[in-house]
Amino acid sequence: MEIKGNIVVGQSGGPTAVINQSLVGIVLEARKHGSVGKVLGARHGIVGIMNEDFVDLSEQSESALERVALTPAAALGSCRHKPTKEDCEKVFDVFRKHNVHYFFYIGGNDSAETASIINDLARERSYELRVFHVPKTIDNDLRVNDHTPGYGSAARYVALCFAGNDLDNRALPGVKIDIVMGRHAGWLTAASVLAKIDERSGPQLVYLPERPVSLDKIADDIAEVYGRLGRCLVAISEGVCSPDGKLLIEAKITERDSHGNAQLSGSGALGDFIAAHVKAKLSDKYPKIRIRTDTLGYAQRSFAGCVSEVDASEARAVGTAAVKYAMKGDIDGSVVIHRLTDSDEYFAEPQLTKLSDVAKHTKDLPDGYINEEGNGVTEAYIKYAKPLIGKLPILGVLEDKTYK
Amino acid sequence: MEIKGNIVVGQSGGPTAVINQSLVGIVLEARKHGSVGKVLGARHGIVGIMNEDFVDLSEQSESALERVALTPAAALGSCRHKPTKEDCEKVFDVFRKHNVHYFFYIGGNDSAETASIINDLARERSYELRVFHVPKTIDNDLRVNDHTPGYGSAARYVALCFAGNDLDNRALPGVKIDIVMGRHAGWLTAASVLAKIDERSGPQLVYLPERPVSLDKIADDIAEVYGRLGRCLVAISEGVCSPDGKLLIEAKITERDSHGNAQLSGSGALGDFIAAHVKAKLSDKYPKIRIRTDTLGYAQRSFAGCVSEVDASEARAVGTAAVKYAMKGDIDGSVVIHRLTDSDEYFAEPQLTKLSDVAKHTKDLPDGYINEEGNGVTEAYIKYAKPLIGKLPILGVLEDKTYK
Repeated sequence: MEIKGNIVVGQSGGPTAVINQSLVGIVLEARKHGSVGKVLGARHGIVGIMNEDFVDLSEQSESALERVALTPAAALGSCRHKPTKEDCEKVFDVFRKHNVHYFFYIGGNDSAETASIINDLARERSYELRVFHVPKTIDNDLRVNDHTPGYGSAARYVALCFAGNDLDNRALPGVKIDIVMGRHAGWLTAASVLAKIDERSGPQLVYLPERPVSLDKIADDIAEVYGRLGRCLVAISEGVCSPDGKLLIEAKITERDSHGNAQLSGSGALGDFIAAHVKAKLSDKYPKIRIRTDTLGYAQRSFAGCVSEVDASEARAVGTAAVKYAMKGDIDGSVVIHRLTDSDEYFAEPQLTKLSDVAKHTKDLPDGYINEEGNGVTEAYIKYAKPLIGKLPILGVLEDKTYK
Repeated sequence: MEIKGNIVVGQSGGPTAVINQSLVGIVLEARKHGSVGKVLGARHGIVGIMNEDFVDLSEQSESALERVALTPAAALGSCRHKPTKEDCEKVFDVFRKHNVHYFFYIGGNDSAETASIINDLARERSYELRVFHVPKTIDNDLRVNDHTPGYGSAARYVALCFAGNDLDNRALPGVKIDIVMGRHAGWLTAASVLAKIDERSGPQLVYLPERPVSLDKIADDIAEVYGRLGRCLVAISEGVCSPDGKLLIEAKITERDSHGNAQLSGSGALGDFIAAHVKAKLSDKYPKIRIRTDTLGYAQRSFAGCVSEVDASEARAVGTAAVKYAMKGDIDGSVVIHRLTDSDEYFAEPQLTKLSDVAKHTKDLPDGYINEEGNGVTEAYIKYAKPLIGKLPILGVLEDKTYK
């Protein structure tokens, strides 16, 4: 059952390549329903609502919206603001003032929590507000979701970046260490293996936050691969911890403190730190060893022109579904992506779950996706992730025919 | 006039996304000529020749070669080895031993020089060796060439990376500083502007090695843009110098030395150093200013799946042309890309020039491509570079319609 009123939609947290698909899915579906008045886009998420700073999305042409859908990063602007109780009351007041009865918030687990708090407030005040969280995060760490919109495209970027780095490292052999985003879960780092050309392809080693590891173990692993292949490509999550539970990079911070150096961490600090350790350990045996490191940057979440088609269409679908749920009478919830597992062919669809199911907590890589030694991923992970990143470009290497 | 004999082809220097197109162009054209015996691919350039380490390219299937053509980084392996006089004599001996009368070397100006030395040696010994340099470099700094194969795809990557970073910086506003490859010339950094969506797009500031600049000037420029737009995206070449002619990063090295810190430079050092300086200068006025930095890595030269079609086809064409020149009787030279300037439509074709024209020296951005203040590029540069990077993805922003 529809209720008459305006819609507010907002985007929150780190951008992704397809978050605008969800926005456009919401706007275009809303236009089909007579009870909807205005569709208002909050500029910079919850902050825009508090400031009554809205884009009139009802006035956007369909062609402008379709261009926006293809464009990375949050078109409405995003925010990292975690609202207080007072903020939520302010939001609620703004909604009442502008006759808003539908609220769609596109974001990660923090956004689901914000939506949940506002939802509770509306119930307390007996104001009918239909509140829906729409999932988004390159981190792929939202519970209940098989995977999250944004992950497929970010994983595609990481996979293609590593495919290129591997080919580069075959051409000019050495040790290459690449640091990948993901503070708490290793989903994005795991994706580094998804565009391997053949069994000789790197990354040969993958380190994830789910498996603590010492610097010495990393150096030993690299020495083994380098001794065998004459080269080694390594994927390391920025969130990797040492066995004492501290982030690897914290060892560096301590070390630096004794120098009184103010700049404790830098954009390339973790990679440089690991590279220096590996070089020190391996230089006796390999005095000329070439070690390089890159820290993959914001391109992981917002590179223009590296979108997984599956990801784009699912991001659109969760936006559309949120409005359909709201219009058919559901009063709150989080839209999730559910994968049908009874078929070999990949198929996924939106479903609805409780806001509290998705809020707060996050989802790690399951044990079955990590190899026993804790320095790689399994076939089960590849089977899970491959359908999410879209069709890969054609790549190949020369046939191994030596002239004698 | 053809002479009977084998061909050696090698790849040298940093990989590009399309260097294998040139390789495949050479192999497939060579197959059309009856006087050619074997086509041998030197593994890791000049080093492979000295070690008589060759891939038999005559035995590669056409489909394998066409896959390789689409693949970034040097399929034969590359090297950074600058040969000595003795090395060149060794190369010459290997050529004579294996009845090699054609040598194609794909690389930058160092490779042209190597080719030139070997060429001189063959003349001295009255051994007919047809020596051709085939251009390749993401740096776009080879003389005589309008542009170089490899630049278009690297420029495309940089342009799309900045387009994404700009959208990201609109969504979560702050100062973002991105460091781009290019020690001596600013061609690749200039490409950061090529995928701008509209006049509000970043990068708003572009710093090139051709224009020395102080850290204070950079900070002042950023303060101006940030004050006006509430955000600022900056492209800085790794080769930017301060007015005293030293690399900007050297200031940091000096500073650190006093701490006895062994790790003088890191993969993110320049960006972090500039960011710290900007933060210190702007934090009085903007205490909450958000400054982030990325150092674009090897993905610039080898990201898989970000190829400019124009670049790919020109890289193929220079390989093909080199063999045609060799077969029709030219005995040495460097293939260059020549742009026809008498038409508004983009058109370029291979031509032949002397090896010495391309060897040793490099080509800077001309004055007309840099703005007066030395912190941006001109329309003339954009007109020059836009045809080189291929068709861009569709991108767009919301129409500026505020709800009142």
